[in-house]
Parts: sequence; structure tokens; C-alpha cells
Amino acid sequence: MSDDFPDSGVPHLTTALKGPLMHLESHLLANQTGIEAWLRAQWRETPAPVYASVDLRNAGFKLAPVDTNMFPAGFNNLAPEFMPLCVQAMQAALERACPDALGVLIVPESHTRNLFYLESLASLAEIVTQAGYEVRIGSLLDDLDAATDFTLPSGRSLRLEPLRRHDNRLHVEGYSPCAVLLNNDLSAGVPAIFEGIEQPIVPPLELGWWRRLKTEHFTEYRRVVRQFAELIDIDPWLIDPLFRNCGEIDFRNREGEDCLARNVEELLAEIRVKYAQHGIDREPFVVVKADAGTYGMAVMTAKSGDDLRALNRKQRNKMASSKGGRDVQNVLLQEGVYTFETVATLDGGEAVAEPVVYMIDHFVVGGFYRVHTGRGADENLNAPGMHFQPLAFHQPLNTPDPGREPDAEPNRFYAYGVIARLALLAAARELSQ
Amino acid sequence: MSDDFPDSGVPHLTTALKGPLMHLESHLLANQTGIEAWLRAQWRETPAPVYASVDLRNAGFKLAPVDTNMFPAGFNNLAPEFMPLCVQAMQAALERACPDALGVLIVPESHTRNLFYLESLASLAEIVTQAGYEVRIGSLLDDLDAATDFTLPSGRSLRLEPLRRHDNRLHVEGYSPCAVLLNNDLSAGVPAIFEGIEQPIVPPLELGWWRRLKTEHFTEYRRVVRQFAELIDIDPWLIDPLFRNCGEIDFRNREGEDCLARNVEELLAEIRVKYAQHGIDREPFVVVKADAGTYGMAVMTAKSGDDLRALNRKQRNKMASSKGGRDVQNVLLQEGVYTFETVATLDGGEAVAEPVVYMIDHFVVGGFYRVHTGRGADENLNAPGMHFQPLAFHQPLNTPDPGREPDAEPNRFYAYGVIARLALLAAARELSQ
Repeated sequence: MSDDFPDSGVPHLTTALKGPLMHLESHLLANQTGIEAWLRAQWRETPAPVYASVDLRNAGFKLAPVDTNMFPAGFNNLAPEFMPLCVQAMQAALERACPDALGVLIVPESHTRNLFYLESLASLAEIVTQAGYEVRIGSLLDDLDAATDFTLPSGRSLRLEPLRRHDNRLHVEGYSPCAVLLNNDLSAGVPAIFEGIEQPIVPPLELGWWRRLKTEHFTEYRRVVRQFAELIDIDPWLIDPLFRNCGEIDFRNREGEDCLARNVEELLAEIRVKYAQHGIDREPFVVVKADAGTYGMAVMTAKSGDDLRALNRKQRNKMASSKGGRDVQNVLLQEGVYTFETVATLDGGEAVAEPVVYMIDHFVVGGFYRVHTGRGADENLNAPGMHFQPLAFHQPLNTPDPGREPDAEPNRFYAYGVIARLALLAAARELSQ
Repeated sequence: MSDDFPDSGVPHLTTALKGPLMHLESHLLANQTGIEAWLRAQWRETPAPVYASVDLRNAGFKLAPVDTNMFPAGFNNLAPEFMPLCVQAMQAALERACPDALGVLIVPESHTRNLFYLESLASLAEIVTQAGYEVRIGSLLDDLDAATDFTLPSGRSLRLEPLRRHDNRLHVEGYSPCAVLLNNDLSAGVPAIFEGIEQPIVPPLELGWWRRLKTEHFTEYRRVVRQFAELIDIDPWLIDPLFRNCGEIDFRNREGEDCLARNVEELLAEIRVKYAQHGIDREPFVVVKADAGTYGMAVMTAKSGDDLRALNRKQRNKMASSKGGRDVQNVLLQEGVYTFETVATLDGGEAVAEPVVYMIDHFVVGGFYRVHTGRGADENLNAPGMHFQPLAFHQPLNTPDPGREPDAEPNRFYAYGVIARLALLAAARELSQ
């Protein structure tokens, strides 16, 4: 899809606000050796999960993760040039996680009508196959009775087979894999078929949304950032979004609304203090999202506590439901990070973009920009809509060039790779708790 | 340099003889999962050295390694697209070999007048730097009294510093590294400065040419190939050059010449049998080289025993000396493998080419063709001369495409990567002996 963009459409930072971030980027570059040594020591203590993707927001004055996905989709959006890097990292990941494995069974999400997801699944299966493993895909779909082939828009073909269990092993017809690669975020809980399985399952079931909370992740991330900020002597806020969580909320019945509005006000006040301290002349905003769950449902932005009180029934219903139909009960209030990266659109306009970074094991293997022509710099870009358009990075993230400007693409991407790995480390520590 | 080649100059196999090799390539592709699983098990038993390059010869009917270099140069000849892959593999290699290292000291060859070597050294230093290590270069040069900067044809700058020792640690002025990366093949023996050093040195000193013999390597390679050939059910000869070694030879004084000539005849006879068995209508030839040493000195080809008896004084003197001035004493006689890969030259002609494959840890990270317009299909291409011209692979070696012809580039390169890793495994086993 990136072919739709003219050459001049290479993502660029708007220049107005890049001063402080260039300072941060220079600082990360200048400390590269120390940063990498520190990260190596962290991975020795807490091994990285098999894979993850991290959504970043780049406000020019601040670069921060806003979501860490332990069961990433979107592999099809990575530039083909990055496939060898993905393959090599997957070899390292699986050699460590499942040393004896010959064959891998991927258990995907059950979105068979989402062709983008199926394309990602096909790319993931290719990566694992090229890493030298036999790969089959075992689906949890209720109504899948036999192996079913899907033909994808890319021309590739993908076979899903019904996931079965025999004693304490998962299998598909005629194939008993050594290891299970989970690409299902378990939003609705752990299906019974997984209970007591003896094959290694990576990432572990405990990283699913049935159990994981964003507040726990960002609490771990805060701890990671405190150590990291001390290491390279920066204000942790430059890479860490402020947040609060807000007990039990029932949007439909307007219970907890006052508490929510009050916390939004308090969080906005905290952000205002940081903006003043760093001389940032912007209106703060807060993002309200489900504490468990993903997929950009039940996400809203607020610039005042009243924004929460003014929700109409339809908006409240939307906030009350998330993927898998689960009612939102715990809510995360997160400092909104403006995204001031834009790409030129074909019609001569500009669209806001946010970087998404992919990691396999602790290696940064690629990324793309999530581009949304219909959304503003203070909105959630992970939203359905025909304007969503990934734009693959064509520069790898692991080869900074200190000889060039801190804002040159390889250097900006190095900064992205550092921040994304801090979020990955937080996720690894969540798991080790 | 590859820019000098027109697009149509992409290396291609001459078609006449590709039948059997396409069969081998198909066979390797069809067995990819089993091959990779087997290799993974081998690396668990015998970890790969930190890096290596392997010279292959592709005769169409046969694909075999002819030299395995444990201290590779030529990193500057790899396509820039492969740098991220090199960086990632170097991270994996050094994390395993020197888990606590922050800084690395590279000890290079002492060829300061060879700008190609210095370019390779600059590329190697970049790879290790981008992998997240502080890097300095400590030279063994006698006449280097202080840090000296070299400006290279690529525009890069390279600093060599005198290698020093304090107690049992190596250092350069003001820098005591955690680990030493050796890029010197120690042809002339292990310098005293290395004795009893407590820092980890990779690859270990024992892999230097002061101690290593090609016959030992090819003996190990033969064992590796026997197991591998059984795994995928092929005639081992298709990937293994026949060889003999020949006790002590003194070319200058014509001692051992008869034995040598007789062994050449016997080896030629063995090759003739294999050629007949596989229906190959070519004249067999034998390559005579020093059993210890590298750099393409003291290498000759022979098509009869008389070729050895007919050497004049100049030729005998050439055979008698090798890198570091060391007299040739042990000689390896190796089945010559024709190279039937050719590239188009700018003048409309064709030049013979042989693939060189680079590995870091057990990962295949890139390669290039060694092209020599002045040499024939039965000659050693690792020779000085203005026509030597590397041509970087632009396809990675770890992403075969089973949907395409076995001879399509990604698939041929997969075969190269497999055979190169068999040679790497042989080297790893040499070390574990």
C-alpha cells in the first residue's frame, strides 16, 4: 500500500516542535553504547517475550509508547526488505523459547472475515516457515469443521485447520507440533482447550488480555523508565505518558462518572505543569480507554472533566463495550501525546501518522506508520475506516548513523527502537511478576 | 563496485550443466524444515564460531566449499542492505560469547597498505558499534607508536592504535575492553602478547592458521557431510570435494615431488570415477595448496601428475612460500570444482564468478561473487589482479521461495547458505576437538 505514496511522501516531522525531541534523539544516539549494554543486561535478567508491537506517539517534544501488543498483527505491513531480519530474529527467539521444536502450530485470532488479519497471519506463517519450522495454523473457530483454504488479496493462500486436543497436547489433523505460537490475545479468557497443555506455548497464556491490565503495564513501564532516565539523565516524562486508573466504571449506568471526571481534571492539571515546565504551548488532553483489551474500541479523548459528563447514550454504550463483548469495568486515563508526524497525501494535504514498532525476541525487526487522513493530531489512529493506511519504514531501526542529523531517518528510527524496547522490557517484567 | 555492472549483469548459471544442481537445489528446498532442525541441533551441541566466510564453487553438477576462513575480511563487499542483518547477528553472537561485554577491541591483520582490508575493517567496526558496543582497534604493527588515522577510499576514517598489555589484560591507550574480537588469522603463530590473556578472545586463538590445517577442516567437513547426506539422502560427493594430503613437501629442493605427482594421479582417477558415475563429460583437475595458510598464495591447479614434475624454479619458489614467509611443508590436494557461474562484463564478455558466503554466529548474513575476468573456470579466483571484482548478492540467503524455480536467486542462495553452514559446522567441530 505504501506504493500509493509519492516519493515525497516520506514521513517527516513537522519542524515547529522538533527542537526538544531532536535533543532527546541526540541524547539517545550519544548514549547508544551505554543504552545497548543496559538493555542487554535487562534481557539477561528478564528474557523478552517472543514478539510484540508497540504503538508510539511522537509529539516532537515527547516520544512515548501508548500501547504494547503482545500478540501483534500487521506483519503484512512490514516492508519486504525486513523479512530476512524477521526470519533471523524468529530463529533466535524460537531456539531460545522452544529449543527442540521442529514444528510450530500458530493459534490465531478468529477474525476470518478480516482479510488484513489473514494477510498478517500469512506473513507470520511465512516468517516461521523461513526460519526453518514446519508451520500449521490451528483455529479456535467454532464452525470450522475441516481444513479450509482462504485466498487472500495478495494472491497468497492460507489454510486454517480446526484446533484439536488429545490428552494434554494440541494438534491439528495428522500434525502434533512441538510448540504453540499464540497470535490470539485471549480477550475473552483462556479457552478450556488450553488448560494443562504440556507443549510450550509462547507468548504464555498469562500475557493475554483476559488477565493483563494496561495500568499494570504502564506501572512497569514507569519503573523501567525511572531506571533508564537515570542512566542517561533525562526527565522521565519525556518518554513516559502520565496516567491514572479509576476503579470500577459502568458507563451504561453512569456509575463512577464523577470519579472519572475528577481524575481527568487532575491528570490534565499534572500535564499542564509539565507543559509549563518544558515551555510547551499546547492544550493538554487525556485518553480514556479500557484497562483490559485492545483494538481501539472504547477509546475516547477528553480535554476537560466535562467531556466525560457530556457523553450521550450512544457514546456511553460505545465506551461500555470492548472486543469480545466484555463490559468495560476498569478504565485507564492516559496523558494524550500529540502526534506531530505527518505524511503528505496524494491530494496535496497532510495526514497524521504514528509509528508502530515490531520486535521479535529483543530485536527490533521493522515498523510502519499508521496513517489516518480523517483524524487529528490528538486522536486515536487505531480506528476502523477506509483512510487507515500503513506506510512501511524502509530504513531498519538498528543501524543509526551518528554522522548524520539526529532527526535523519535512521537516527529517528533508532530512538523509536529504544523506546519500543523499553515498553517490551516492561511487558517482560509483567510476565516475570 | 557492483555499480559498474549493468542490471543485466546479475550472475546466472550457465544453463548447460544446471540439471543435476537444480536437482540438488530442489532437494535442499524440499527438505528445508528437516535441514534447519538438524542444523539447530548441531549448533546446540557445537556452538558456531563468532564469524566465518566460506568460498564455494558451483559447477552446476556439484556445489562445494573450497575454503573456510575463520577471520574473514571483505565485509565491505556485502551489500548495504545486509548491514541490519549483520548487526542483529553480531548482537546474538556477542551476547552468547561475551555476555557481559560493554566494549570490544578488534585485533586486525597488519596490512595497513591494503586499503581493501582497511575498508573491511571499517565495516566490521561499524557492525560491532551498531550492535551496541564501544569499539577500538588495537594493532599488532611493530612500527605503530601512537594512534594513527587512515582516510579510506570510501571517505570513512579508521583509527588504529598500538595494542598494549598490562598484567593479563590487553588494552589500547585509556581503554580496557571486556572482549577481544580477533580478525587476524595468526599465520605466523600466536604473538607473545596474547599469552595468558584473561579477557575472552573470539574466535579463539586455536582457530588461527598457526595451528589449523585444511586437511583437518575437510576431514571434519567430510564427517559433517556424511551425516547430512544421510539425512537428505544424496551422494555426499555432490557437496564434498575429494582430497588427499601429502606429508612433508619441500618444493624448493624437489623433495616429495614424486609422492605428490602420484597422489595427484590417484585423485584424478577417483574424480574420473565420480564423473563417469554422474555422466559428467569434463576433464578432472586437482588444486594443490598449502595445508596451513590462506590468501591464495601457493595455489596451483594440475590436470596430471606431470604438471607437478614440470614446475620450473620460479613456480617451485612460489609454491614454497606462503603468507608470513612460512615455508610450505604440508600440502593439500583437493578435487578441483569447476565454477560455471558467470557474470556478464561491460565489454559484452563473460567472467567466471564464485560465491563467498558470510556468517555471523550460525546466521547467514550475506555474500558476494568473486569475479575474475582474467581467469578460467578451473582456476583459483582468489588471486591478486585488477580484474578482481566483488559483486554483492542483493538477495538474502535466509528467505527461500518454494513457489519459484529451484534455480531462482533466493533458492540458489538458500542452497549456498546450507553448504556454507555445513563448512561452518566443520570448523566449529575442529574447535571442539
